[in-house]
Amino acid sequence: MNALGIDVGGTFAKLALVNPKGRVLKSAQIPTEPRKGPAHFVKRVKAATAGWGHRRVGIALAGGVDHAQGSLLFVPNLPGWIGYRFKTAFGLPTVVENDANAAAWAAARGRRSAIVITLGTGVGGGIICDGKLWRGATGSAGEIGHMVITVGGEPCGCGRFGCLEAYCGTAGIQRLAGRRVTPKELADAARAGDAAASDVWESVGTKLGEGIANLVLIYDPEAVYILGGVARAGELLLAPARRVLDAQPFRRPFKKLKLLAPADRDWGALGAALLALEGARR
Amino acid sequence: MNALGIDVGGTFAKLALVNPKGRVLKSAQIPTEPRKGPAHFVKRVKAATAGWGHRRVGIALAGGVDHAQGSLLFVPNLPGWIGYRFKTAFGLPTVVENDANAAAWAAARGRRSAIVITLGTGVGGGIICDGKLWRGATGSAGEIGHMVITVGGEPCGCGRFGCLEAYCGTAGIQRLAGRRVTPKELADAARAGDAAASDVWESVGTKLGEGIANLVLIYDPEAVYILGGVARAGELLLAPARRVLDAQPFRRPFKKLKLLAPADRDWGALGAALLALEGARR
Repeated sequence: MNALGIDVGGTFAKLALVNPKGRVLKSAQIPTEPRKGPAHFVKRVKAATAGWGHRRVGIALAGGVDHAQGSLLFVPNLPGWIGYRFKTAFGLPTVVENDANAAAWAAARGRRSAIVITLGTGVGGGIICDGKLWRGATGSAGEIGHMVITVGGEPCGCGRFGCLEAYCGTAGIQRLAGRRVTPKELADAARAGDAAASDVWESVGTKLGEGIANLVLIYDPEAVYILGGVARAGELLLAPARRVLDAQPFRRPFKKLKLLAPADRDWGALGAALLALEGARR
Repeated sequence: MNALGIDVGGTFAKLALVNPKGRVLKSAQIPTEPRKGPAHFVKRVKAATAGWGHRRVGIALAGGVDHAQGSLLFVPNLPGWIGYRFKTAFGLPTVVENDANAAAWAAARGRRSAIVITLGTGVGGGIICDGKLWRGATGSAGEIGHMVITVGGEPCGCGRFGCLEAYCGTAGIQRLAGRRVTPKELADAARAGDAAASDVWESVGTKLGEGIANLVLIYDPEAVYILGGVARAGELLLAPARRVLDAQPFRRPFKKLKLLAPADRDWGALGAALLALEGARR
């Protein structure tokens, strides 16, 4: 039995047909067209995947998810989609999951414990505890981006100050760079020898390291995964982060810790499909 | 079947005979006398509990614990005790646990998820995940005190800067107060109308609130428990912490969150006994 995984972004949605071994058999991308509403979106997904033969659906959404109802509780980039019951929309058993959780589940597959950090416009996360996705008491676990690492620090989009996202999200990186630049452009500049660009990555990576160190001290996972657009900076970001981890006085949780930045994939769509298959197995 | 719980402090050890319902049937306190070594300590525990009729032993120690070996891996206040195998020392099935974990297990008994913060000289913690004590990949989970809330902030005993412990541990509180004062004296002063003392608690509570907010955003527990000597300041500490939580822009994980400071008990000894009984049930 295969599952369709859908990762709904603000502009595009990624579709993936996934088999029980986690292999992506087919994939596609369609525009999300948020303003046309969720029912219209579902219709277009069905059209795009006609004949794929999936028997389960997993859908990853960038917002708070009601797992029981299979609907969105709140969402930044899909206004008007709140409350729509995806769970019954496809005529197939359907799992609805937060996109960072879905991505975490795919990236950390098979781990007993892991923290997965997604770096992009927002900084999100997912937690694997005892081999399972930990959603928390209210389904909001993993809001790693709003962990404060400097009380009274830089302003964050959330209205508070000093959140990890204020340093490691796209807006924070641009503020440090002093200009509207994409993470990719900034990484290219650093690699081409631009010292100012290198300094920005040094600073971003150091702050990321502080955030990771906090998470490791609290949670002591086997591995920390870094995903998302900003993570493509690779060693520019990871080398300074690793230096912070190496300087921790409590060595034990850091000694065998794996800090991983796997190659880009449609982690959200893959994870949503895997969760749908997982649900089917229970 | 009853269990003996032992919480080994640097000066005194608390002993508690606990039944399977978690009721403390007998209790005692003996000096730890760390320099006489662990074998001597075990001998005195046996003497002090002769005739108690326990069939299991749980021992809580302030340090890193090797659960499989039942020994201490590192420890700040019991030099010379490292490596001693408590597991086989009592001639009874014995569980060895970190003291903050043991206290967490007792305080949050029956919860599906909780974070327990122990405030004293050090700031420690324990995590309940999916109804179980989460020890982490290396047994070091819950090092909440060394979560950095202000990069480059106040110096911490660990050698780093801006850790939660640097603001909410006894040393941090004394630094804020500008004098060597116990948390109890400082709480008494604040209650007697000393404005400077009140300001210290306001600051400590606010920092604690920032730390709790981080933990809740990351982990989304049902409840957060505050234990330990500093917690006796009660509302002096909790009121400002609650204000930080109430000001969080992401409401969902905070809305039904329980912030609890239960009355003082020998949580470590009780938790160690409960873990010993738990082990017996499996």
